[in-house]
Amino acid sequence: MSGPVAAAPTEGQARKAYLRPLDIKRGRIDMGHGAGGKAAAQLIDELFLAELDNPFLRQGDDGASLPLPGPGSTAGRLVMACDGHVVSPIFFPGGDLGSLAVHGTVNDVAMLGAQPLYLSACFILEEGYPLADLQRIVRSMGAAARAAGVPVVCGDTKVVERGKGDGVFIATTGVGWQAAGVDVSGRNARPGDAVLLSGSIGEHGVAVLSKRESLAFATTIQSDSAALHTLVAAMLAAAPGAVRVLRDPTRGGLATTLNEIARQSGVGMLLQEAAIPVQPQVDAACELLGLDPLYVANEGKLVAICAPEAAATVLAAMRAHPLGGQACQIGTVAADAQHFVQMQTRFGGRRVVDWLSGEQLPRIC
Amino acid sequence: MSGPVAAAPTEGQARKAYLRPLDIKRGRIDMGHGAGGKAAAQLIDELFLAELDNPFLRQGDDGASLPLPGPGSTAGRLVMACDGHVVSPIFFPGGDLGSLAVHGTVNDVAMLGAQPLYLSACFILEEGYPLADLQRIVRSMGAAARAAGVPVVCGDTKVVERGKGDGVFIATTGVGWQAAGVDVSGRNARPGDAVLLSGSIGEHGVAVLSKRESLAFATTIQSDSAALHTLVAAMLAAAPGAVRVLRDPTRGGLATTLNEIARQSGVGMLLQEAAIPVQPQVDAACELLGLDPLYVANEGKLVAICAPEAAATVLAAMRAHPLGGQACQIGTVAADAQHFVQMQTRFGGRRVVDWLSGEQLPRIC
Repeated sequence: MSGPVAAAPTEGQARKAYLRPLDIKRGRIDMGHGAGGKAAAQLIDELFLAELDNPFLRQGDDGASLPLPGPGSTAGRLVMACDGHVVSPIFFPGGDLGSLAVHGTVNDVAMLGAQPLYLSACFILEEGYPLADLQRIVRSMGAAARAAGVPVVCGDTKVVERGKGDGVFIATTGVGWQAAGVDVSGRNARPGDAVLLSGSIGEHGVAVLSKRESLAFATTIQSDSAALHTLVAAMLAAAPGAVRVLRDPTRGGLATTLNEIARQSGVGMLLQEAAIPVQPQVDAACELLGLDPLYVANEGKLVAICAPEAAATVLAAMRAHPLGGQACQIGTVAADAQHFVQMQTRFGGRRVVDWLSGEQLPRIC
Repeated sequence: MSGPVAAAPTEGQARKAYLRPLDIKRGRIDMGHGAGGKAAAQLIDELFLAELDNPFLRQGDDGASLPLPGPGSTAGRLVMACDGHVVSPIFFPGGDLGSLAVHGTVNDVAMLGAQPLYLSACFILEEGYPLADLQRIVRSMGAAARAAGVPVVCGDTKVVERGKGDGVFIATTGVGWQAAGVDVSGRNARPGDAVLLSGSIGEHGVAVLSKRESLAFATTIQSDSAALHTLVAAMLAAAPGAVRVLRDPTRGGLATTLNEIARQSGVGMLLQEAAIPVQPQVDAACELLGLDPLYVANEGKLVAICAPEAAATVLAAMRAHPLGGQACQIGTVAADAQHFVQMQTRFGGRRVVDWLSGEQLPRIC
C-alpha cells in the first residue's frame, strides 16, 4: 500500500474537506465531480442538496429510508437507492455494465439493512451502438438480477445522436424493505465500535483500469462485482441490533467511504494498515499505475461498523459466507471532533487518510 | 389535422405492427429506437423483455404494480416507474429538463391510479457543462418536486468526458402507493368503454421542436408539462372503480398511446377526429413542420378509458380540475381482433391511425 506517510494531523488539515465554495457563476463540471471524492461531495452539498433539500435526502446514506402510507406503515419502511452507470470500458474482466448496474444498486439498498426487492433500469443508448453488444449487456443484467432474486420490473430506453453519448449508460433504482427496528445508517458509528471489512480491496478499479490502459496484467485481476444482500442478511441475523453502519466502498474507495461515515457520524477512526487485505497483483498494479488501493473502487465488498462486543460474532457470520471469507477487523471508531480517519502504517507511523481529491479515477463504475 | 386518409384497414395492415424480426447480429441502434413508436416497441419486446423477462415487466404498463412483504401487503401495492430524460434543447418554452423529469415520472406513477410518493434522480453530466445551467435545472426540478409534493429522496451523479454526453441527462424513478382495490392498467379496456382526453394535444412536442428549429412561433407555444396526479386522484374519487385505463400520451403522441392500449387490452378503438382538441397555433406549426399532431408528444395530458355509464361523471371531475378544463370524449373502445385504432375524419371518411413509425421525433423528452 503506497501513499504519503504523515504525522498527526495539522491545524490546516482539520478544516472541512473543501475550503472554497463552488463557483456556480463561472464554474464548469469537471471529471473530478464524478470521481466520488471531495469535489463530488461538494457538488452534492452546495448544488444538489441546496436545491432539492428534504429530510430524506439529508439522511446522507447511499439510499433513503422512507415511510409508506396505510396500515402497513408500522411493519417497516421502504428503502430507495439509485445509481448511474457509465463505466468505461463497458466490458471488463469479471463483469460488464449490465451486471454492475444490478450489483451496485442491490448493494446500495442492502447497505441500509434492507431486503432488495425490485429494480428499475433506464438505458441511454448512442445511435449506432451494435444491437449484439446491447443484447450482451442486457443478458448479463438479466442473469445478475435472476441470481440476486431482484427483478428489473420497469424500464425506459432513450436514444441520443452519435457523438452525444458513449455507447450505453444505465441508470438503475432499487427499492427494498427495511423491517421495523432495523436502523443501519452512516450516522450510527460510535467511539469504540469495530470497523470490519468483508475482503480484499481494489480489484474492481484495477480490473477496469487494466482493460482501459490495455495493460499486460489485464487477464489476471477480475472485478469483485457481486451482490452483497445475502451477506448482509447473514450478518444482521447473527447479531441483531449490533450492526450500526454498512457501506460498500465503491467510487473513492475504502478511504473515501470511511471519511463519509466519519463525517456523518461525527467521529474519527483509527485503522491498522497491516490488517487491510490487498491481493499482491492489485498491489503490484497500483504501484505501476501510481495508485493507492485505499482509493480504488470495489463493487463486491462492504464495510461494517458494529458494537465491539458483537465484532467476533459478526465476523464469524461474514467468514461463513462465500463473499466474506477474508473478512477482518481493520480498525476502531474513535472520538474525534475533527472527524479524521487515521492509519497506523506498517512502519509504525500514523497518517491521515483523507478523502479522494481530484479526478483520480473517473468512469470506474 | 393532416395525415393520409384511408378506407377500412386492408389485410396487410392487419398484421402485427412490425414484420421482420430485429437483426440483432448485424443491427445497430438508430434514432427510431428512441422515438416511442414501432421500432422502440420492437426493441423492447425482442431484446429487453426477452432478456429480463418477469411477470412485473410483462404487465406492459408505463410502471409496475408490485406486492410488498409483511403485514402491510394487503393494504395496497407499490408502484414503480422510470424515465430517462434526454430532451434537446434542455431549456424549452414552458419547461426544462429538470421540471420535465419530475412531471414525466410523477405522471407514470399516477397513470396506474397510484399516489406518487418519492423520486430518485440520476444525473449524467458532460465535462465542461456550466454549473450555472446545472443549478437552473436542479432548481427547476426542486420547484416541480415541491409543487407536486413528491420529493427527490436519493440521487447519483456521474460525469463523462467532453463529447461523450450532451450536457445533462436525467434518469428518474418514481414510487407510489396503489390502494388495495385500485386496478388501472392498459390491459383493462373493454368494448363499449368511453375514451376520454384531458385537453388539447401536441403542445410539448411543438414547443421543443420550435426551439430546436429556431422557428418564429417559438414564443407563442408553451409545453404543457405538468404533474397530473391530483387530476387522477379527482377522477378516481368521482367514480370509484369506473376508470379502467389511464395513460399519458408522451413520445409517439396520442396515436401511439392508443395503439399501445389497444394491443394490451386486445381491443380496437374508433375516434372522432372533430372531437380531438388541437390549439390553432399547434395545428399551424404542425403544417409547417410536416407533422401530424396525433403523433406529437404531450407532457401534461392524459387519456382515460372508463365504463360508458361513468363517462359523464369522470368528465365532470376532469373539467373541474385546472389541468382538465378542456376534457372531452374522443371516441369509444370497439371489439376488434386486429386491434386497430380507427378514426372518423372531419370529412366523413375513416382511416387507420397506426403507430408512429421511424424516427419522426427523437429526443423530445
